[in-house]
Amino acid sequence: MTLNITLSATLAANEEIARRRRAGQRVLNLAFGEAGLPVHPALRERLADASRENGYGPVAGAAGLREAAAGYWDRRDLPTDPELVVCGPGSKPLLYALLLAIGGDIVLPMPSWVSYAAQADLVGVRPIMVPTPPGEGGTPDPDRVVGAVLHARAQGRTVSSLLVTLPDNPTGRLATPDTVRRLVQVARDLDLVIISDEIYRDLVHDPEAAFLSPADIAPERTIVTSGLSKSLALGGWRIGVARLTSVPLRDRLLAIASEIWSSAAAPVQHAAAYAYTEPPEIVERVDASRRLHGIVARAVADRFARAGAAVSYPHGGFYLYPDLAPLRRFATSGELTSALLDGHGVGVLPGSVFGDTPGNLRVRVATSLLYGEGEEQRTATLTSDEPLDLPWVAASLGHLEEALAMFTEKRRFAAWIPSPLTPVTQ
Amino acid sequence: MTLNITLSATLAANEEIARRRRAGQRVLNLAFGEAGLPVHPALRERLADASRENGYGPVAGAAGLREAAAGYWDRRDLPTDPELVVCGPGSKPLLYALLLAIGGDIVLPMPSWVSYAAQADLVGVRPIMVPTPPGEGGTPDPDRVVGAVLHARAQGRTVSSLLVTLPDNPTGRLATPDTVRRLVQVARDLDLVIISDEIYRDLVHDPEAAFLSPADIAPERTIVTSGLSKSLALGGWRIGVARLTSVPLRDRLLAIASEIWSSAAAPVQHAAAYAYTEPPEIVERVDASRRLHGIVARAVADRFARAGAAVSYPHGGFYLYPDLAPLRRFATSGELTSALLDGHGVGVLPGSVFGDTPGNLRVRVATSLLYGEGEEQRTATLTSDEPLDLPWVAASLGHLEEALAMFTEKRRFAAWIPSPLTPVTQ
Repeated sequence: MTLNITLSATLAANEEIARRRRAGQRVLNLAFGEAGLPVHPALRERLADASRENGYGPVAGAAGLREAAAGYWDRRDLPTDPELVVCGPGSKPLLYALLLAIGGDIVLPMPSWVSYAAQADLVGVRPIMVPTPPGEGGTPDPDRVVGAVLHARAQGRTVSSLLVTLPDNPTGRLATPDTVRRLVQVARDLDLVIISDEIYRDLVHDPEAAFLSPADIAPERTIVTSGLSKSLALGGWRIGVARLTSVPLRDRLLAIASEIWSSAAAPVQHAAAYAYTEPPEIVERVDASRRLHGIVARAVADRFARAGAAVSYPHGGFYLYPDLAPLRRFATSGELTSALLDGHGVGVLPGSVFGDTPGNLRVRVATSLLYGEGEEQRTATLTSDEPLDLPWVAASLGHLEEALAMFTEKRRFAAWIPSPLTPVTQ
Repeated sequence: MTLNITLSATLAANEEIARRRRAGQRVLNLAFGEAGLPVHPALRERLADASRENGYGPVAGAAGLREAAAGYWDRRDLPTDPELVVCGPGSKPLLYALLLAIGGDIVLPMPSWVSYAAQADLVGVRPIMVPTPPGEGGTPDPDRVVGAVLHARAQGRTVSSLLVTLPDNPTGRLATPDTVRRLVQVARDLDLVIISDEIYRDLVHDPEAAFLSPADIAPERTIVTSGLSKSLALGGWRIGVARLTSVPLRDRLLAIASEIWSSAAAPVQHAAAYAYTEPPEIVERVDASRRLHGIVARAVADRFARAGAAVSYPHGGFYLYPDLAPLRRFATSGELTSALLDGHGVGVLPGSVFGDTPGNLRVRVATSLLYGEGEEQRTATLTSDEPLDLPWVAASLGHLEEALAMFTEKRRFAAWIPSPLTPVTQ
């Protein structure tokens, strides 16, 4: 067994940016998918209320949490048996354990979140990267899945599952209902389990947008994963939930979970149970967060578009995935993002870490760390009618505009001026 | 890949006992290794104080927690660089990720904690089970390790590591310094990494007992894992720490951690940082817990000894591992524990789940759930001068005595009375 694994690209970028900031550099963190908003006070209270809870509790999660999560899905027209809900310390470990529980190779969209393919490597299954349909994100192109799976199977590989992200990280795009329907048909034809990562579901910017989960039309083969890291900014609390399809699969998942992590932190489970009942104050918080993420993500997309990048505007979450090839040429997206970071103090991630072809100069831009530093600024941003006008948001957008202008400008001189060790923008 | 895995035996037993209790059965839970004591109020306060912390934070854990954990080891004469400390959501996931990070097969003591071998299966490495030295627990017999490893290597297997548990679960025994020294020499000769699971270290009953960690004499090859689940009863909070030997190994561990769990819950990390600074109130709490665990574990050992079982008295933690063969014959320890549970309402675990030979009628008895139900009783037990005289503790010990007497009594009639479906003791 050889493991060729490095620190998760998103977490590594965040730590690198934190290091540079401690060293006094001014760096705009557009690399890390942390929701960048405060904990709702009601959840803080629930955590404190549960500070006596120190038992390991059931591996699947406390009954109250499983019932609340089932209710959450019920309200989204996915009737759910609490017995088929499994909680864990984040949706990331649940996805990891699902790969082990299901076994066999997995079809992933290209590009897709950095950890899917890395987790597959860790458990020793091979990801089959299938490009997303043109202009879409989060699903492998249904027309290309069949060929890829049949090819892999002809080579003797076992292909068991495919994964979708609705709406998507890194592209911020939401697959159309038509694409989801066609993909479900392909999954049925090929007898594939579908893992639908819906952790950004409540952050689709337009609440009227059509959202179709594969679980709506193929509940027998669709596992849904979610969590509170994004919609309620609880990334650091580590809580996720999975909606399973059957008791045997649940039992396999629980067996694996029991040997890797035992359970999610009990006080966090208690707070999460409250959140999943969706009382008005929590619904309002998610609504406000969704609105803010949409405004800022679009504003950042505007900056990239105005600078000349090709941008598909995001539908949900706090990401966009512009193509910077029109701005300036580099051999790879990794070289491009290094130049942006070292030369202009702008941290974004190269598309290559999401499985994109390195020569494609696409980058993932996370916009959720533009809301300010500390709880006071972030609360002000969340509650502002005009968040883009707040000085700290405006300053970051200004930094970005300036950086993109300088970055693009270099193109004209690149032929005759040797590239210096550019100092970080002051 | 085929995974033949079931729910962790300890967690499964705990859930089964909880089910029976909900159904109105009276069952003494001697199966589950939960510390059975309340959270110290100072830790509850620290958790609540940190309820604003929702960032993912560094994969290795917050700097304050790593520094505090380093201090904890410094005070135990193991000088520790905070940069080589990695925190996780429990020592269980750290152990799992270490198996992946180190690679290769691992030598385990037989018997040993249920999850070591199960985790090895999950990551696809083969455990080499080596019996503990006669009368000892927690270390493979040094004299037998050499042969087992050379045999495995002769078959082409890569053997990279060996594991010790100091003091031990399931036996409650602490390996002697002489055994540790001999084992370290063997590890050096065979070039094996040592993983020393010291999660029960602060619960060695006799504070004057000689405790030798392999890290004391072979720091270059010994990884130490620990956590707060046992000494401070924080099992349900999920926090563990590992003391690594080198930057490359740490980086591999962090890479794996970043793809499986990201980080431990941030508010829990904050409380754990406080605990690892070992302020007087926390030291007192651990002292009181250690004393109580010792008193009750010895009292339970007395009951088994008086009933005629062969018992090695425990040195630490809250476990003992009596041999019940003198009491009554069964084909396997699993049949024996089923009979004890179904017929006498006493839940213990068969030695077989710890890797022991099924025909050995040894069982693991966990004594830490005898302290009462709820915070009030448990606090009273913790602070009592005579905990065995408290009515709830005395009642449980009485239940055990009676059950063991009846269980033993059956032996005399077993030849001529067919075993009925015995109702649970009322």
